Amino acid sequence: MNEFNIIDTFFKPKAAQSESDIASGIRLGVGDDCALISKSSDLDLAVSVDTLIEGVHFPESSPPDLIAHRALAVAISDLAAMGAEPRYFTLALTLPHADTDWLAAFSGGLHEAATQLNCAIIGGDTTRGQNVSLSIHVMGDVAKDQALLRSGAKVGDKIYVTGPLGDGAAALAYLQKRLTLQDRDLGDYLSRRFYKPQPQVRAGLALRGVASAAIDISDGLLADLGHICAASDVAARIETKRLPLTQPLLAQVALSHLQQWALSGGDDYQLCFTVAKKRQSKLMQKLAEAEFSAHLIGEIIPPGDPLVIVDGAEDLNLKRSGYQHFA
Amino acid sequence: MNEFNIIDTFFKPKAAQSESDIASGIRLGVGDDCALISKSSDLDLAVSVDTLIEGVHFPESSPPDLIAHRALAVAISDLAAMGAEPRYFTLALTLPHADTDWLAAFSGGLHEAATQLNCAIIGGDTTRGQNVSLSIHVMGDVAKDQALLRSGAKVGDKIYVTGPLGDGAAALAYLQKRLTLQDRDLGDYLSRRFYKPQPQVRAGLALRGVASAAIDISDGLLADLGHICAASDVAARIETKRLPLTQPLLAQVALSHLQQWALSGGDDYQLCFTVAKKRQSKLMQKLAEAEFSAHLIGEIIPPGDPLVIVDGAEDLNLKRSGYQHFA
Repeated sequence: MNEFNIIDTFFKPKAAQSESDIASGIRLGVGDDCALISKSSDLDLAVSVDTLIEGVHFPESSPPDLIAHRALAVAISDLAAMGAEPRYFTLALTLPHADTDWLAAFSGGLHEAATQLNCAIIGGDTTRGQNVSLSIHVMGDVAKDQALLRSGAKVGDKIYVTGPLGDGAAALAYLQKRLTLQDRDLGDYLSRRFYKPQPQVRAGLALRGVASAAIDISDGLLADLGHICAASDVAARIETKRLPLTQPLLAQVALSHLQQWALSGGDDYQLCFTVAKKRQSKLMQKLAEAEFSAHLIGEIIPPGDPLVIVDGAEDLNLKRSGYQHFA
Repeated sequence: MNEFNIIDTFFKPKAAQSESDIASGIRLGVGDDCALISKSSDLDLAVSVDTLIEGVHFPESSPPDLIAHRALAVAISDLAAMGAEPRYFTLALTLPHADTDWLAAFSGGLHEAATQLNCAIIGGDTTRGQNVSLSIHVMGDVAKDQALLRSGAKVGDKIYVTGPLGDGAAALAYLQKRLTLQDRDLGDYLSRRFYKPQPQVRAGLALRGVASAAIDISDGLLADLGHICAASDVAARIETKRLPLTQPLLAQVALSHLQQWALSGGDDYQLCFTVAKKRQSKLMQKLAEAEFSAHLIGEIIPPGDPLVIVDGAEDLNLKRSGYQHFA
């Protein structure tokens, strides 16, 4: 049983509760990148929570300032995927013991990330436990009826991603010493991509009114695009050769290996989104105005099995379709 | 270094950030039971996060439905302390493995608690980790400028608590088999008090415009009343003999022992609040109208050291002033 089944099976409100949800201001509940609650006449509040655990989501003995940065960036990526503007966060921090140096470095990194990502800490809870773990709960503003959902993709829509895929998996391999690099700069680049991923907030904001569906790529393109397909009751066809890759990595890793990582590696925190034909020109206009990228990778097709058809992936081993806890 | 110092030292926003907080809608940041963010012209959203860890906050192999109930009730207690009305929560759940029976029981308890406590789940994240741990992030509505803060107590204000103290510590002793009881009903009562504490939401709502300061008693009366004193720049004098106790416990536990638990045991989730003399009659009126209790235990006095003077506690060992992580 994977994470998605757990949430669907056990934590969606019962039908009886769902009706009263509407009255109590829940505009979107469990099941998308964020929930939406009604904030004012023109704004909704997008809320999301992410947990990072030492040894599971980041290597043991990671620098504490980088753990903090990664945790906040990863949480904000869910706001980006909804087209929400980051506002506030709370931190639940569990530590084996109160090491003042560790805490000073951690909080330094957290405050730096909060400033860079324009999201203010408003509360927290610290507890003692065996492992370092953090839950960050983020909140952001989104104009009413403007949030990007997973459920709006239609047959014929084009599929895009905002940037190179596979970096997250390459970075993890590098940090875990499964990938050795001659190129020191490339190593630094990968470390940054792992610890300081750039949530695509600008892209999310620009895509409101343009994209028909969106998600952030945390579990791998196949898994996350699969969520769009499931929520939209469609399927997708993508072309392996169109996947944007980080070129310097190709000097170190076989193309098929990098493509495999791009399809199913996870941890990229780019957005995957769909755009209807009639909105393509609007997308081009947004791309010219705003500082983000869009790479066409495929098209939405009628529902079928599998949810995502990958052309040109005959040589790839794609069994592991995304990072799944408890898998 | 204890939990409070950690939050004060490391996680309060820097001064430079504080100014921009106002512009970005933060009405109250780190340091009270909840943060407050501006929601609409007449409402603020109170937000708080609480983490519970197996073996630290509840015994290992606790029934999963009761873990869920306790976690939500404890988190909502912070909303009660602010005079906020519970609305929504998210759950970050960490488990060593995905045990379907455990998850079914847990989610059953969670949905039951959500219905009882009138708070709807809107999101969640599940991750794999060595121990069971949960962070619950609650959100509630409070009318603008009506929130109960820790910082409003004035010299001469009377100090009250909403119900019996010491039950939390007695319950923990009972569950840990340090306290054996002949009386089965009393054991059941204590288990209920531990796993299903009643957050004092009605009291908190009724106390808006009446109490000058309030806090919920999670870390023990001395520690939590101490927070009111520190935030209000006052001290407190309380009378041990006025502490409300659960009478049947006195057949099993020495009076001095129970008083000690009442003062410093923690886990009671009653409210401690202060009321100015001129508001006493309003308090009496509220008590007549609303279903909650208030027990007078002392008075606010000018600032001094210690923050809380305990009359009639000469025989008690009060070294352990509240439950402190990392202490």
